[in-house]
Amino acid sequence: MVNQQRRLRMRHAMEAQQLDALILRLPENVLLLSGHWPMIGAAYLVFPREGKSVCIVPECYQAEVGGSLVDCEPIHYPLGGALDPPAARVVKDLLAQQMKPEWRTIGYEGDFETVAPSWNAAEGLVPTASFQHLLAEACEGKTLVDVTRLILEERMRKTPHEIVRLAIASEVSCFGLEAFEQAVSIGISGVQLAALVEQAVMVHGTGYRDSVRVRAFAQVTTGPAETAYAHRPNVISTTRPMADGDIAVLELGVVVDGYWADRTRVRVAGHASDEQIRIFETVRKAQETAVASVHTGVRARDVDAAARAVIEEAGYGPSFPHITGHGLGFGYHEPAPILGPHSEDVLEEGMFTSVEPGIYTTAHGGIRIEDDVVVTKDGALVLGPYKKVLQ
Amino acid sequence: MVNQQRRLRMRHAMEAQQLDALILRLPENVLLLSGHWPMIGAAYLVFPREGKSVCIVPECYQAEVGGSLVDCEPIHYPLGGALDPPAARVVKDLLAQQMKPEWRTIGYEGDFETVAPSWNAAEGLVPTASFQHLLAEACEGKTLVDVTRLILEERMRKTPHEIVRLAIASEVSCFGLEAFEQAVSIGISGVQLAALVEQAVMVHGTGYRDSVRVRAFAQVTTGPAETAYAHRPNVISTTRPMADGDIAVLELGVVVDGYWADRTRVRVAGHASDEQIRIFETVRKAQETAVASVHTGVRARDVDAAARAVIEEAGYGPSFPHITGHGLGFGYHEPAPILGPHSEDVLEEGMFTSVEPGIYTTAHGGIRIEDDVVVTKDGALVLGPYKKVLQ
Repeated sequence: MVNQQRRLRMRHAMEAQQLDALILRLPENVLLLSGHWPMIGAAYLVFPREGKSVCIVPECYQAEVGGSLVDCEPIHYPLGGALDPPAARVVKDLLAQQMKPEWRTIGYEGDFETVAPSWNAAEGLVPTASFQHLLAEACEGKTLVDVTRLILEERMRKTPHEIVRLAIASEVSCFGLEAFEQAVSIGISGVQLAALVEQAVMVHGTGYRDSVRVRAFAQVTTGPAETAYAHRPNVISTTRPMADGDIAVLELGVVVDGYWADRTRVRVAGHASDEQIRIFETVRKAQETAVASVHTGVRARDVDAAARAVIEEAGYGPSFPHITGHGLGFGYHEPAPILGPHSEDVLEEGMFTSVEPGIYTTAHGGIRIEDDVVVTKDGALVLGPYKKVLQ
Repeated sequence: MVNQQRRLRMRHAMEAQQLDALILRLPENVLLLSGHWPMIGAAYLVFPREGKSVCIVPECYQAEVGGSLVDCEPIHYPLGGALDPPAARVVKDLLAQQMKPEWRTIGYEGDFETVAPSWNAAEGLVPTASFQHLLAEACEGKTLVDVTRLILEERMRKTPHEIVRLAIASEVSCFGLEAFEQAVSIGISGVQLAALVEQAVMVHGTGYRDSVRVRAFAQVTTGPAETAYAHRPNVISTTRPMADGDIAVLELGVVVDGYWADRTRVRVAGHASDEQIRIFETVRKAQETAVASVHTGVRARDVDAAARAVIEEAGYGPSFPHITGHGLGFGYHEPAPILGPHSEDVLEEGMFTSVEPGIYTTAHGGIRIEDDVVVTKDGALVLGPYKKVLQ
């Protein structure tokens, strides 16, 4: 059965923590345990340690749910009609009906500070105080436990089924990398490049290996003044036209039916300088050295150190300010593993991490190369391999 | 001073509720009271009832913050460096330093279930359990109060400054409506149309009237089987090519520097049937009748009734299943006003609402027309007016 390993593993973890059931509503976690990726956080998965799950979904999800729910029974409720009763009240009653007398402890998502958007992306529905009050009423007499940490730990190691889905997302991201490389040229702006990349991913990705809901989030900086800060969280695409010798840095998040890829490529418009080529080759070598160092049992900090050593040896140490990589999968960023100098993580089979060293100088601009790799017994498996070229 | 009215009004509301300060981290609310729209939820606004605000922001926001913060002093902290201390610890200390001995009660965002994405959109940062623990430590000895309802009520009535920004967002949305109308044709798919619309908004919107961060979220359904359900939250764009006589429905969310527009237009590929034209004209009349009924002091349910009466009179009553409109502004959807049959809302000056009746039949497809209007003493002010045509 599709991804049965995931549900078995979660049930073992629940047994160890004496949890009788989970109630989940973040789309990323409903996907994790049911196979159904809701468009908004209006689907509620009751996942018991023993027996079949139940997914309480808006009536309009019937078609999607029928095709995607695994080992799980759908229950429908009205949402969006002008005369519908308040959804919260209906959901509370439906949840209460699922409670088994023998259940004592129920887990909920109390602390997901980072939330992956659904395909629509324009608005997130998150579980906050109102939902906790609703849970307390629906689960009267039970003990509620925040299972955020448990879920994130389980999500850290991907199953073979999930790795296939993640590979599809990485392959789809290549449509964006290709559009970027073809479009970088003198006169084009970061905004234009970002829009072309997002368009290519949506248009070519939808339908690719049966993908249904595909969306890209591209950020393209250009020229030394912008790309020197292409590693910061405030990077946006601007209308500045590229000049001869400008680097463009593409930071690309892609979600395909709930599974994420995170890629970076760079490209020069016109002619690259010798120094840009030297920096690019250093980053490429650092990235590939880090990838080659990935293996089960390796400390995450050692992968970071492998990349950092290459960059330091070339004399660019102070220009590599950030960590080498981070976990991802059911979101653009997941908290583990962290490939950084302070990390305590040890790589395990099925972990999924970005590998993305970079060098940033105001004189020559920023250069970063990023792929996502699965940790295996045979080393790193790069998903959606794609060429690394500067020009 | 830019949008001083907003801060004055909030301070009056805080006085009425005996709140000494607010601590806000949702980007939409930091924008509301400081003028700065953070890229992620890593900016923390301390907004006191008396005296200057403080905004605790990542160092990398310095440039953006310098240009946008009003009546507010920035304090920087490191974020994203490989060797940075944990941000939560630093932020906790910085927040604690802002506490005044005379403050007794502090408001926080405990219950925003719906969260507007930042420009990046690929990931949301929301305040959950960890942040509440952090607040409890930083505000030791103070009483913490959830001010979600207060903020949403204040957000409901827009200031003149905000209406100008919302008008820009609506005007930018017209680039998407135009791209849609020009592209609808036999053979094109919903996915292709959605991607073209998003591209047009980003490329033409960025820089328009000094707009900096612009993003569109388009959903395009085509043909009767899809558009008959174009009012449901699970609507996605597909690869199905349009046939002669197919309707395309564009549902379009646009965010410009934190301010939202929500539009819908429809268009036929090839030739429309007489019945499609009749339905379109009914929806157009319903939408314009509803808009004409908007005025300060009018009950929101009466605006809904005005649209519903036109549709019922034409014999399509049961095919208009949803409400006529909803509030928006600092998010794609805001909880008030609701233009629906059960609404208790009364329209006030400065409220901002969508007006979007529709008729959906499996035989002829779905048709909806949506604009956003400001409630004024002189009636409805339609922002970003755009033509309504079927073919």
